[in-house]
Amino acid sequence: MKVETLRWFNNRLEMVDQRILPAAFEYLSYYTAASVAEGIRSMVVRGAPAIGVSAAYGVALEALRLQDKSAVEFKEGMEVGFTVLAASRPTAVNLFWALQRMRKVWEGVVTQSPQEIAQRLLAEAHEILAEDIRINKAMGAHGAALLKDGARVLTHCNAGALATAGWGTALGVFRSAVEAGKKISIIADETRPFLQGARLTAWEMVQENIPVTLITDNMAGYMMAQGEVDAVVVGTDRVAANGDVANKIGTYMVAVLAKRHNIPFYVACPLSTIDLNIASGKDIPIEERSADEVKGFRDTHWAAEGVKIRNPAFDVTPAELVTGLITERGVVLQPDAQGIRKLMAG
Amino acid sequence: MKVETLRWFNNRLEMVDQRILPAAFEYLSYYTAASVAEGIRSMVVRGAPAIGVSAAYGVALEALRLQDKSAVEFKEGMEVGFTVLAASRPTAVNLFWALQRMRKVWEGVVTQSPQEIAQRLLAEAHEILAEDIRINKAMGAHGAALLKDGARVLTHCNAGALATAGWGTALGVFRSAVEAGKKISIIADETRPFLQGARLTAWEMVQENIPVTLITDNMAGYMMAQGEVDAVVVGTDRVAANGDVANKIGTYMVAVLAKRHNIPFYVACPLSTIDLNIASGKDIPIEERSADEVKGFRDTHWAAEGVKIRNPAFDVTPAELVTGLITERGVVLQPDAQGIRKLMAG
Repeated sequence: MKVETLRWFNNRLEMVDQRILPAAFEYLSYYTAASVAEGIRSMVVRGAPAIGVSAAYGVALEALRLQDKSAVEFKEGMEVGFTVLAASRPTAVNLFWALQRMRKVWEGVVTQSPQEIAQRLLAEAHEILAEDIRINKAMGAHGAALLKDGARVLTHCNAGALATAGWGTALGVFRSAVEAGKKISIIADETRPFLQGARLTAWEMVQENIPVTLITDNMAGYMMAQGEVDAVVVGTDRVAANGDVANKIGTYMVAVLAKRHNIPFYVACPLSTIDLNIASGKDIPIEERSADEVKGFRDTHWAAEGVKIRNPAFDVTPAELVTGLITERGVVLQPDAQGIRKLMAG
Repeated sequence: MKVETLRWFNNRLEMVDQRILPAAFEYLSYYTAASVAEGIRSMVVRGAPAIGVSAAYGVALEALRLQDKSAVEFKEGMEVGFTVLAASRPTAVNLFWALQRMRKVWEGVVTQSPQEIAQRLLAEAHEILAEDIRINKAMGAHGAALLKDGARVLTHCNAGALATAGWGTALGVFRSAVEAGKKISIIADETRPFLQGARLTAWEMVQENIPVTLITDNMAGYMMAQGEVDAVVVGTDRVAANGDVANKIGTYMVAVLAKRHNIPFYVACPLSTIDLNIASGKDIPIEERSADEVKGFRDTHWAAEGVKIRNPAFDVTPAELVTGLITERGVVLQPDAQGIRKLMAG
C-alpha cells in the first residue's frame, strides 16, 4: 500500500491521523489555517517535511476561505493565519521555510484579487508537495549508495512516508536501497513517548515487506555492542549552519553510541531543513511538550502520582558525531560550516 | 510509608505484586517453591537482591510443605524445588547465591528430620532477609558520602526497597543521603518495557518526599548535555570478576553518556552480586523475555502488527565506564579484577 500522508481532496486538505496509527488508518479534513495549526500541534501530522507541506496548505486554505472578503480584510486574515501556523511547533525549520516561501509567493501577486491570490497559493502548496517527493527520491538514491547489501540499519523515530509528502527521508533511503536490489533490514527504536518507531516506522516497513525489528529505545546500545547494527540513518527537524542536528529526543544518545562502536551515523536532510540563520545547535529552540505524554500512552497512565515530569521533544547531535548528511544534492561527509556553505551554494 | 517488599506472614511468604504498582498495592501469598519461581519469572518480585531473598524463602516453603514426607521423598522433592527456582531467571546472580547458601545449610543438617531441616532453612531465609537490609544500610552510608549536597542524581530501573528486602541499593544510597541531611533530587528513567522507573522508583521517591523527575529512557543524553545531571547511581544483577556490570537494559547507554559528559557513574552492589566464577561481562547470560512486553504495556498494544521484536532484559557495562562500585565494605573506585579480588578477600 502506498501511503498518502497528505492529499488535496474536494477542495480540502486531508491528513492521515498519525495519533491512532497503526490501530486505525483514517483521514481528517482541514479547511482553515487554525485547524491545520492544531493538527500540527497535536501531532495528527508530524515529521519536519510533512509539517512544512501541511503548513503550506494551511496558508492556501486560509486564502480560499477569505477570498470573498475585501482586500483589506483578506490581508488581515492572512496575517493571522501565518501567525497561528508559525506558533504551532517551534523546532522543525521546514515549517518556517514553507511559510516564508508561501509569503514570497503572496508578495509576488499581492496586487491581484484575493481569488487570484488564493489560486496561486494553492498551486504553490501543490508544488511544495510534489517537490517533497522528488527531493526524497533524490536523497534516497544518494543514501542508498551508502548502504551495503545485507546491511542492518538502525533508525530512530519515523522519518518515513508519514513524515513527508511520501517516500520519506531516512525510510526513503531504505526504500531506494530495496528498489536498487539491496537486501537490508531495519531496527526501529520504539521512540517514547509518542512511539513513532513502534507505531509508524514498523508499520511502514511491514507494509512494504522490508524486514524490521522493533526494540525499546534503551536497547540500541546492547544491539550495537552485540555487533548487530551496521549503520544508523535518521531524519532531522533542523540542521544548524555548523552541521549540528536537531532531531527527535534520543537521537543524540544513538549518535554517541554509534561513535563508540564505529558505526556510521547518517542524517537524511533535505536542503529545506538546513537553517543558515542558526549558527550552532545550542541556538535551536527545543520544544517541551505536555507531561501527559510521558505519564503513559493515550489513556493508559502508569507513572506514579506526584512525580515531576520533563518532556523535551528534541535533542541536538553535534556535527562531530555525524558521518554524513544525505541531501538531494548529494552526501556531505563530516559536515561542518564550510561543507554546508558549499552545499547550499550549490 | 515503609515498603515491605517481602514478608513472612502466617507461615507463608507474601510479596508485593510489582506488576500492578503504582495503580494498586497488593500482597500475593506463596506456599511452594514452584509458585515462588513463577512469581520471580513473571516479575511479581524483581531486583537482584529481592530475587535472592524470595528464592531463599522458596526453598524454606518447599521444606515446610514436604516436612511430613519420608526422608527420601523429602530429599527428592527438595531437589526439584531447587531446580525450579534456579530456572526462574538467568541473569541475577543473587538467585544462585541464595540457593547455594540454602543448600549449604541443608547439607549441614541433612541427617536431621525433615521438620528440623525445614525450621533451620526458614531461619536462614529470615536471616538472609535481615542481612539484606543491614547490607543496604551499610552500602547507603558509603554511597551517600559520594553525593554532594544539592546533587541531581540519575538512576535507571528500580534498585530500591522494592528490589530488595527494604531500603534499596541505589535508592538506599539516596535514602541514606537524605537521612544524612543532604538535599538531593532524583531523575528517574522510565525504563521500558516494564517501566520500573516510572512505576516503582518514582513511586518510592514520592512516598518519601524525595524530589523526583521522570523522563523517558531516550532523554538521559539531553539532560546530561544540558548540565542537569551531577551523578548516576544504579543497581546491578551481576558483576563479573573483572568489574563488568550486568544491569537492566539501557544501563550501558547511560554509562556511555555519563563517560562522555564526565559524570561519575556508580553501581550499588552488595557482595552477593559479585560473581567471581564469571571472568568478564561477555560470559554473563542475558535473559531475552517475551515479545509481548515490547509490543505495549499490559493490555495496551501499540506496535505495528507483523514486526519482529527483540527483548533482551539486561546489558553489560564494561568496568572502564564504572567510576565506583558501592558495596557494604566500602567503595571500590575504578573497579578491575585486582580491586575486586582485594574487596572479596575482605
